[in-house]
Amino acid sequence: MSDDTLSASAYAVSPRNRVKRTPDRGHYDRETVHAILDAGMLCHVAWVLDGQPFCTPTLHWREGDTLYWHGSSASRMLRTLRGGLAACVTVSHLDGLVLARCGFNHSANYRSAICFGTARIVEDPEEKARALIAVIDRFYPERAATLRANTVQEVKATTVIAMPIDQASAKIRAKGVADDPEDLGHPVWAGVLPVRTVLGAAEPCPHMAPGIARPATLDAYAEGGTLDAALRATQALYDPA
Amino acid sequence: MSDDTLSASAYAVSPRNRVKRTPDRGHYDRETVHAILDAGMLCHVAWVLDGQPFCTPTLHWREGDTLYWHGSSASRMLRTLRGGLAACVTVSHLDGLVLARCGFNHSANYRSAICFGTARIVEDPEEKARALIAVIDRFYPERAATLRANTVQEVKATTVIAMPIDQASAKIRAKGVADDPEDLGHPVWAGVLPVRTVLGAAEPCPHMAPGIARPATLDAYAEGGTLDAALRATQALYDPA
Repeated sequence: MSDDTLSASAYAVSPRNRVKRTPDRGHYDRETVHAILDAGMLCHVAWVLDGQPFCTPTLHWREGDTLYWHGSSASRMLRTLRGGLAACVTVSHLDGLVLARCGFNHSANYRSAICFGTARIVEDPEEKARALIAVIDRFYPERAATLRANTVQEVKATTVIAMPIDQASAKIRAKGVADDPEDLGHPVWAGVLPVRTVLGAAEPCPHMAPGIARPATLDAYAEGGTLDAALRATQALYDPA
Repeated sequence: MSDDTLSASAYAVSPRNRVKRTPDRGHYDRETVHAILDAGMLCHVAWVLDGQPFCTPTLHWREGDTLYWHGSSASRMLRTLRGGLAACVTVSHLDGLVLARCGFNHSANYRSAICFGTARIVEDPEEKARALIAVIDRFYPERAATLRANTVQEVKATTVIAMPIDQASAKIRAKGVADDPEDLGHPVWAGVLPVRTVLGAAEPCPHMAPGIARPATLDAYAEGGTLDAALRATQALYDPA
């Protein structure tokens, strides 16, 4: 399957990933799911140990239809993964607060992508080396080659996790107040309070030698821009498929 | 235990909630955990059905040591809850991207709170009525009384979930670049790119009658302010303990 076909196609739908509540907000095509994943850096991973669910926040990145995240070899989650672990990875964006004329129609604008798969530790040295470049360059274009090289100890101390996405769904609400027609005259303020995640002014490390400028490759993260746009732009450079 | 004692005390620590990776970032006191929960509206709930983990994003609120969230009675998660369901609820804030001089020291500034407990459906009509007021007034002070009243059908169609927090932990990174001393001379830009979630200009519903002003009770959500500050301020009004 070519990359174009991959991104145009949809995930198979079953009871596991079908959007049951407000199904009109559900999407299953890769393009929509990937756009939500790529617009965020923070994901939450649900996994189970001895029947107990855990919800672990971490940073993720995507290559084609595989999600990656990483952590210390010491982490509890990762120790359980040697044989592959059923996981559910969710990326959510809160885009607005929706204040309606009755409690029931209060809502939020949001985008979320829920991905199911089996997570595995990346053991192959070449795949791991590529992933340790990707975790930098996917976010900060061309940066990995400018860094002090990883030591053997650092590589050993880092565990990279990969999860091919077996199934996924996206859910999106992106509209104004949806009150019942008979409530429109109710005399209360109603509307949307938009929410966005933005970048502040860069805080250079005080230990930098004089004369080191912020490289143009970080321009996507300029002050006042949204993190969403910065992450989509850098993903498009990294994984143009 | 008085409310003061409650908020000053710490959650019991066991292998389930102990922060193993970078334990210096771990906190177990209620004040720290609650502040992270209260600063967010979006949480992720991990739960298990037939061995399959699910990571469901939803909106939450807190009263004392109980987390609440709600949803439609039709939702898959809620149908499994009649007998109480083991759940893990996580609230995370991404506060900054940390660009170091080697890959290993790249990081993020963040605050996360992970809460463990058994979730139950709120069945008692009085508790449910209070919760349907809380889901409005906790976020939008004094708003519930100004709305068109809930209908019997709306109350029936809404399921409220409560989870007393049995155990919890918080994890916080809030500092600059932490490079090894011998790397400080490496000639690459290093620093923190701060991230914050802010409110945009309110978008009034176009169907409002003329002359309905935005009430001062929504001033916490003024354009340009952070959602974090708005949610903490409204929580302090709602649940001052």
